[in-house]
This record gives sequence, structure tokens and C-alpha cells, in this order.
Amino acid sequence: MELAGVGIDLGGTSVKMGVVTPEGEVLARKEVATPKGPARPAVAELSRVVLQLIQASGLRPERIGSVGVGTPGILDPKKGLVRTASNLEGWVDVPLGDWLANDLGRPVRVINDAHAAALGEIRFGTAKGIEDLVLLTLGTGVGGAVVVGGRVVGGSRGLAGELGHMRIEMSQPRPCGCGLFGCLEAYAGAKNILKRMHEALADDIQEISLLKEKSKVGPLTVEDLFWAAAEGDGIMLRLVDETALALAAGIANLLHALNPKAVVLAGGLSRSALLVEKVQEYLPDLVLNPAYLDDFCVTISSLGSDAGLLGAAAAAMPFPS
Amino acid sequence: MELAGVGIDLGGTSVKMGVVTPEGEVLARKEVATPKGPARPAVAELSRVVLQLIQASGLRPERIGSVGVGTPGILDPKKGLVRTASNLEGWVDVPLGDWLANDLGRPVRVINDAHAAALGEIRFGTAKGIEDLVLLTLGTGVGGAVVVGGRVVGGSRGLAGELGHMRIEMSQPRPCGCGLFGCLEAYAGAKNILKRMHEALADDIQEISLLKEKSKVGPLTVEDLFWAAAEGDGIMLRLVDETALALAAGIANLLHALNPKAVVLAGGLSRSALLVEKVQEYLPDLVLNPAYLDDFCVTISSLGSDAGLLGAAAAAMPFPS
Repeated sequence: MELAGVGIDLGGTSVKMGVVTPEGEVLARKEVATPKGPARPAVAELSRVVLQLIQASGLRPERIGSVGVGTPGILDPKKGLVRTASNLEGWVDVPLGDWLANDLGRPVRVINDAHAAALGEIRFGTAKGIEDLVLLTLGTGVGGAVVVGGRVVGGSRGLAGELGHMRIEMSQPRPCGCGLFGCLEAYAGAKNILKRMHEALADDIQEISLLKEKSKVGPLTVEDLFWAAAEGDGIMLRLVDETALALAAGIANLLHALNPKAVVLAGGLSRSALLVEKVQEYLPDLVLNPAYLDDFCVTISSLGSDAGLLGAAAAAMPFPS
Repeated sequence: MELAGVGIDLGGTSVKMGVVTPEGEVLARKEVATPKGPARPAVAELSRVVLQLIQASGLRPERIGSVGVGTPGILDPKKGLVRTASNLEGWVDVPLGDWLANDLGRPVRVINDAHAAALGEIRFGTAKGIEDLVLLTLGTGVGGAVVVGGRVVGGSRGLAGELGHMRIEMSQPRPCGCGLFGCLEAYAGAKNILKRMHEALADDIQEISLLKEKSKVGPLTVEDLFWAAAEGDGIMLRLVDETALALAAGIANLLHALNPKAVVLAGGLSRSALLVEKVQEYLPDLVLNPAYLDDFCVTISSLGSDAGLLGAAAAAMPFPS
């Protein structure tokens, strides 16, 4: 019988952990706030929770083999090092893999969080069995992963998959949170969509938008925007359209470069049926040849927020990844 | 001793053929005009020349194993089929692989011409031994190939690598020859650069450009443009700058998506030192993180116009490709 593993999805606000079977079943899970402060004690705290989790799983400890961690930031996956991570304050050249391995007495693999999510989807999720695909995570920002021949592409330094920072606009580029200009994320990341929404509402002096009143009362969310668009709010519909067009252009770029069999959308915005529908409407006009869309699909992550945790566990398990 | 092979680089105007050793030496070569007319007789004519070439190589026929063909257009590489090729008039669903195999009595592999060029570069050229790279061919149009883990990425239908049709402009996109808008090729393909040059010269009513006079006498080439820019012609320098910025943005997109170790530039424009220098100047300002440029290089094809022929031969040889 193959060993179960531990998956850790280390985010900026919370850490999700689970004991995962080789079939992708989560036997036990825990979610804790990301420990703040110096990195070594923070990692020790995580290790403590992992040991509790292993106990809670009901498996004998020797039935649990390896530990996989998906983390944000710039990594050195071979060394298990977190070089820098804007969401993990003070983490510079943190030997996360070594520390966890030391605390837990198990082999540890550290991978990029978006790569982990892609691995989760191809091993256990909507993309199971698909060899060539691209994952786009549509959250506050836009991230992703490229899978070629069933393997997540890391590239020379493990930095592949930053699909949100594809430049899609040169002449009038919007600034992106990353410091660059004209990135896909500057058009399709939730943070920037909200920014554009507020600009549009500020321009709406005739108070046409359904959200104009609400914007005076409290903060608006991307959900409000999609709700208003679905209700026929022309101003919000235009924003959804612009977002969908940017996303479709980004996807077309990936189709031309990699000719994948699927694009898997994950993250909060992927739950907007209106957005996904519009992306699919735009795609045919943006590809060089209809053959790119033969036998191709845009699909939604089936693992949701578990993708990272499951993929991290899978990455560390002793079968091909 | 390993067998030699035949490489065929089937272009729209000419066909280059060579008998190639496993080490990439061309023992004999021939170049003929691309046969016109119906596809079957055209392929038979090519087969006839290949048999002459085999004779001219001085090798005993049984020392020559397989035949590889790099062709433009939309292919089905598994079936050796040319579905359509805008440069090969009348070729629709041509079973090129089967016909050649039948005529030549040897196994034949049909691959995309840009994929062949990339394979040539990683097997025998400037990219020898590099596992992760991107090839950009800068000719009349812009083509390319993606190499991950030492293998050329084909994708679901063998259509990967159309890097010239990455969209880099949404708000004021120039039309591309392919029918789409805002493609990298619309800014960095020689045909479109010339178009922009003529637009700039038409606007140059004060006759500032060094090329203004020359443009009245005869047709200008991209070489003229680069010459004038190098001489300090401000109008032409601006065009070279725009081209370099578009190329650098395209390369940055590929760095973010794939984090390759090298980008190999091939084709006529890659011979412009000024252009390549400016691309390298722009790159650092276009990447998310300087780590993308650590241990990375932009390099020029060392095989030149032989890359396709060598790579096609390599693709058909019985070692990993």
C-alpha cells in the first residue's frame, strides 16, 4: 500500500494543511492563520500543527511518508528555499524544506503554490489525465502554471507560470501591482478590476450604474460588479467585457505558444459564469486557426481551494510529478 | 555506427535538402525551387532529387536511414499530413509522410519547420545542451518554437510555437498579416516593419530621413532601415526602438510563462546587432523579477538557414528528439 502524505498550502493569510492519500482523499485537515514574526519560530509552529494533524488523521505515523508545501514568492525548489515572498513578511532565503524536514522527520518538497494547484488539478481534479494544459488562477492577482506532457513546467529557475504578467498592452498600459505596465493582471486581477470599477463609478456623474448608490454606503466587491453586470448595468457590463477580452487575449497567447488541450480557470473570478461565458465568446476571434479550439476546452477548477493542498501533497509523493 | 539521415527544409520558394550525419555534418546538399502544381507530382519530383542527393553523398544507400521534413502550415505530425499551408498552393490534406516513405523506401517524419529549426539549434547549434529555451524566427513573419526539458513542445495538435501571434496590443492594435490584430508579428515581422517605414516616410514631409530620397528611386529593404538607424536617422531609430520594445515585451512574456535558459533569435532580422542590442537593453525593465535574467541569455542562431534542414534530419533519427 502506498503511503499517504501531507500537503501544506502556505498562503499570506492562512495555511491549509491536510493528510492526503495517494488517491487524493483528504483524511484530516486543519487551517490556521499564517504565523507572523521571525521565520524559524513561524515554521516551528507550522510543524507543531502538522504533527497534531498527523495524529488526528488516525493513520499510524509510519503510514505517512512525505510532506509537500506550496508557497508563494520566489523559490529555489531544488534547495527547498523561499528566496523572497511579498506575502510572507521578513522571509528572505528561508530554508523552509530543511526546517520542516528537521522538525517532521520526513522528506519535504517545496514548490510554487500555483504549480501545486496545477499538479492537484492534473492528478486529482478536472484536468485528470490531460497532458498539456494551462492553469490560470484568477484571484486578487492572476497566476498560473503551464503543464507540458503531464509535468508542471518550472523552467530554468522554477519561475515559469507567471501568466498574469504577460504584457497585453503597449500603447496605453495600465500600471500593474507588480510595478510593470500592461500586464494581464492589470486588466483581469480582482484588485485591478475593482480599481477600474471605482474609476467608472467616479465618472458616472449621471448615476446610471446600479452600484452608484451602494458605492456611497460601503465598500464594493467584485461580486457586486458581476451581480450588477448580470442585472444589465451597462457600465459594469462594459468592465466585464473588457476583463473577458483581456483574459481571452491572454489565453489565445497561451494557445499559440503551447497549443494546450485545456485551460483550467481557478480562483474567485472563475466562479463568475458571465465572465467565463464571455471569455469563450471572444476566443474564436483571437486565434490564428480554428484548429487551436478543436478538442480544446476552457474548464473550471474542480478542486477549488483544495487544489494547492492536494497538489503539494502529490508533488512530494514518490510517483511521477 | 549510427546511420546518417536526410533532412528536407520545404519552404514556399525553395527546398533545401541534405544528407546529415548524427553529428550534424552535411555530407551533401541540394537546393531546388519548390515544385509547383498538384501535390503528388511535386512530391515525386522532390523524391527524385532526394535519391540523387543520396547518390551524391558517397554513402552506401543502406547507411542512410530516415528522412525528416520540416514544412510550413498546419500539420498533423503523427500522421505525416500537411493539412493546409498558405505557402504551398493547393496542398490540402497532403499525406506527405506516406508519399515520401513510399518513394524513398525509408521511414519519414514530418514536422513543423520552426520546430525543426529549434531541434537543429538544440542538437547541433548555439543551444546545444540547453534544455529549456525558446526560438524566435524573425523573418518576413515571426515564428518560433518552445523547448521544455530538451523536447520541442508540439501541444495537443502540433500547433505550439506560433509566438509571432502573441497579442501585445489591445487598445490600438496594428493589423497583422494573419488577419488578427496586435500580434507581435505586426510590430516585429519584416513585412510589417517595412510597412511602418513607408508610413513614417510618407509622414516625413520635411525630408529629414536619410531614406527619403532613396525611397523615391527604388524599393527599400529592412537592411536600408537598419543602416539608416545605425547612421543616426532619428525616424528610423524610432522604428528600430519600437520593434525592439515589441520584441522585448514578447520575450518577457515567454520568460514569465516558461522561464527558459535562453532565447535563440534566428532569421534575417536577428543579424541586426542594433536591434538585438536594444532588445537586451529593454528586457530588464520588462521582467517581474531580475531572477528571470540570471543565467539567461539572448543568443543568435549559429546554424542560420541550415537549422531547419539539420533539425528535420535530427527529428527523424532514432535518438530522443
